[in-house]
Amino acid sequence: MKRKDLVDQIFSKKSFLCVGLDADFDRIPQHLKDNFEYPVFEFNKQIIDATAAYCVSYKPNTAFYESRGVAGWVSLQKTIEYIPKSHFVIADAKRGDIGNTSKQYAKAFFQAMSCDAVTVAPYMGEDSVSPFLEFDDKWVIVLGLTSNKGSNDFQFLQDKDTDERLFQQVLTKTQTWGTTDNLMFVVGATHPEKFAEIRQIVPEHFLLVPGVGAQGGDLDGLVRHGKTNDIGLLVNSSRGIIFADDGPNFADAAAQAAKRLSDQMSTYF
Amino acid sequence: MKRKDLVDQIFSKKSFLCVGLDADFDRIPQHLKDNFEYPVFEFNKQIIDATAAYCVSYKPNTAFYESRGVAGWVSLQKTIEYIPKSHFVIADAKRGDIGNTSKQYAKAFFQAMSCDAVTVAPYMGEDSVSPFLEFDDKWVIVLGLTSNKGSNDFQFLQDKDTDERLFQQVLTKTQTWGTTDNLMFVVGATHPEKFAEIRQIVPEHFLLVPGVGAQGGDLDGLVRHGKTNDIGLLVNSSRGIIFADDGPNFADAAAQAAKRLSDQMSTYF
Repeated sequence: MKRKDLVDQIFSKKSFLCVGLDADFDRIPQHLKDNFEYPVFEFNKQIIDATAAYCVSYKPNTAFYESRGVAGWVSLQKTIEYIPKSHFVIADAKRGDIGNTSKQYAKAFFQAMSCDAVTVAPYMGEDSVSPFLEFDDKWVIVLGLTSNKGSNDFQFLQDKDTDERLFQQVLTKTQTWGTTDNLMFVVGATHPEKFAEIRQIVPEHFLLVPGVGAQGGDLDGLVRHGKTNDIGLLVNSSRGIIFADDGPNFADAAAQAAKRLSDQMSTYF
Repeated sequence: MKRKDLVDQIFSKKSFLCVGLDADFDRIPQHLKDNFEYPVFEFNKQIIDATAAYCVSYKPNTAFYESRGVAGWVSLQKTIEYIPKSHFVIADAKRGDIGNTSKQYAKAFFQAMSCDAVTVAPYMGEDSVSPFLEFDDKWVIVLGLTSNKGSNDFQFLQDKDTDERLFQQVLTKTQTWGTTDNLMFVVGATHPEKFAEIRQIVPEHFLLVPGVGAQGGDLDGLVRHGKTNDIGLLVNSSRGIIFADDGPNFADAAAQAAKRLSDQMSTYF
């Protein structure tokens, strides 16, 4: 997907919501497990039907599919095929390896599956990221500052030469490997105070923002400091939407939760 | 697998060779593609039969399977099931995510597949690593200093407070999250001069060492500085063994390449 198409959709829907399809098998309603060969796919299908009007993007996290073995991988493929072409599909895979191997991961998510973007861990540097950037209209979303507690372990290490923190150095350096048309960064909503300084380093790149909802991040703060003229944000909610209710009405509850966030987002346009 | 069983096997075979099953589909011999439903699995099967006597470990890199979609994931599962129980199986997956998600990756590789170890990227910190450490007799192999050119981009960043490089801080901090019985580190053979200082930080942990062979690393240097009383090294070769010949005799050629490395390793006992 081209940046313009993503931005157009955001403005027409007045939403920059990404729904995280972290389809934890243990939390899938029992009636789906009883009645469908691929209950995870069926769950996602109903979630997608219920929420597509309120979001611009879906983000399946590969871990929740891999944990189910081959059946999980089938559910992931079927889910990605089912997502409407209008929506920006992010494989939240956090891959990254030496060059010839990252190229295989790029094939996995951009060719074997038709995702628009994949999340990539930066630890292994340029040749682990650049193979993903060689596909037209495909995106790499590099981990910058993550939403979890462990983000404090290494991401704030301060460089002796430049005084930059590691996450800042990742943003500074990585943005030279791609463009604002094929590169985004993950910045967790649990660090709202960091959005202003992050925007000084990457003023125009889209940021994928997890951590609103179950992880406690505050939408208002991050929008105030993180929004650009193009909005420039994809704010993700996973558990808060897809597991808003664990019974037969899960899809309605998901729609309501997505609509609530989308309505709140519409006030920023 | 317990550390003692791994060490016993190393000493009985006088080998610390790990064969990397990076089964690039484009390099699989044509006759396998013509005659088998899962040519990648058939390729691995013949490689395993030919090399098992010379190595103590196999390391399928998940990228080469994911790039083939569901068929690739089936080949990966069949490969892991086929590897003899005597051998230490490493899923080279370089995963790592927030806690509840890493737990799913751990299930994927330790339960849905019966791997002994999985490689994990450290960028997201403790809660991205620790869920993998909660399984008996399973191992986490954390990226320390990788073998690729991009290892210079972030891994050598020097901490203002401690003067430690990022990869050193990863070793220092991460080793407190596990033990020498469930935690190893990746250290690339392309940095032989670093093994002595790495051994000062992690004197007893096993190191998984990629980069010998196709990537140019030198076995002698890394053994001199990296070997412990328990050997403490798993030295990986992938392309140099499995693609030693691309014709019908690929398995024989792989056996010879593995034997050559194993014979060289035997001189260090």
